[in-house]
Amino acid sequence: MEINYSNIKVIGFDADDTLWVNETYFREAEIEFGKLLSDYETINKIDQELFKKEISNLDIYGYGVKAFTLSMVESALEISNYNVSAKTIEAILNIGKNMLDKPVDLLDGVQEVLQTLSNKYKLILATKGDLLDQERKLEKSGLTDYFHHIEVLSDKKEANYSKLLNHLDINPSEFLMIGNSLKSDVLPLVNIKAHAIHIPFHTTWAHEQVTKKETNGKAYKTIKSLTDLLKILD
Amino acid sequence: MEINYSNIKVIGFDADDTLWVNETYFREAEIEFGKLLSDYETINKIDQELFKKEISNLDIYGYGVKAFTLSMVESALEISNYNVSAKTIEAILNIGKNMLDKPVDLLDGVQEVLQTLSNKYKLILATKGDLLDQERKLEKSGLTDYFHHIEVLSDKKEANYSKLLNHLDINPSEFLMIGNSLKSDVLPLVNIKAHAIHIPFHTTWAHEQVTKKETNGKAYKTIKSLTDLLKILD
Repeated sequence: MEINYSNIKVIGFDADDTLWVNETYFREAEIEFGKLLSDYETINKIDQELFKKEISNLDIYGYGVKAFTLSMVESALEISNYNVSAKTIEAILNIGKNMLDKPVDLLDGVQEVLQTLSNKYKLILATKGDLLDQERKLEKSGLTDYFHHIEVLSDKKEANYSKLLNHLDINPSEFLMIGNSLKSDVLPLVNIKAHAIHIPFHTTWAHEQVTKKETNGKAYKTIKSLTDLLKILD
Repeated sequence: MEINYSNIKVIGFDADDTLWVNETYFREAEIEFGKLLSDYETINKIDQELFKKEISNLDIYGYGVKAFTLSMVESALEISNYNVSAKTIEAILNIGKNMLDKPVDLLDGVQEVLQTLSNKYKLILATKGDLLDQERKLEKSGLTDYFHHIEVLSDKKEANYSKLLNHLDINPSEFLMIGNSLKSDVLPLVNIKAHAIHIPFHTTWAHEQVTKKETNGKAYKTIKSLTDLLKILD
């Protein structure tokens, strides 16, 4: 599909798994959690139960590491049939604290791409999750100065993006979103007539996965890596 | 002290304990938490330990109910010397979930004051805490339409406010902040040459308390209730 990007004035970047590693840390945490509860259930069942708990808590807790930690604690109680020890609960809290303390590991080409594009476009960061955690990661990343505006959203649905574009005072046709999640960074944009480019990350959280049917005929491009953006936009 | 408010263009309102009840819910939660652990310690000691835990976790967790819940769980492990039961941990998680599900109880005169001031000033909401929780409370409050802009801050220090004013593209002298916390809503503003009016709430979290020395000679006004604002500004 040929898409014309000549109208673009503002480019929004997702952060987690688009600019830096994130999902990998969640996967590692799930593996640790599984080991802690392996006396009670199979790893497969523990994974499934934790995922179900996260989804059922999404409305009340939202996204991010604190929400994830609370869901791990709640899952541990239930998976162990209330036999889990206080020391295991402490180990679970520490999984969460370690996640909040992880270094920020930039993906390939991030600096170069932001540097180049920031000469021609207004760049913003649009991420969801914990406000404090995202601000902390951005600071650790050293990328703050490339962004004109940082927006931490409680969710990334069409209404959230429409509000953001309204606030930026631009038309949807002037906005391009770049991200690894079809569900959060691509489809809502295409649906409100803005632009989106998909850069898959090797791991995607089950909650962010979409069906072929949902992407069928939608006007977005998929590229392999962030540096490929420069071929399209520069 | 006579203060001239004629330059004011934008008024920022704190939300928790300024527009609606909040600290009361935290106090109730602390009482419930104390009861759950009363086999292990005195209520006074439990209160002190929980507060210490919240403060020591502030850098990593930030503000809000999810952070508070995680600190309650961690405190319970330590206060009980790791003897706390899984059922008690579940009860603690439920204290947190109930807090996130509380109705929004507006303080006296809020609707009238916002309605009147919104005719003359641009109003913004500037709050700290969980992004999702604050958005949810604002929606429940029915006050969304009075505000031109909602800003959830990870903290309320001078740098956070300077960034906000920069973003709003106004001078400090054109901004007035209204809130119940001297530490978060008043002193940082006065220190960056913006205006602030203090409306005490009957309960203040220990972390938000300041000394006489810190407020001495600072140019801000204290009023008894939100409706008194109309005498000053309208």
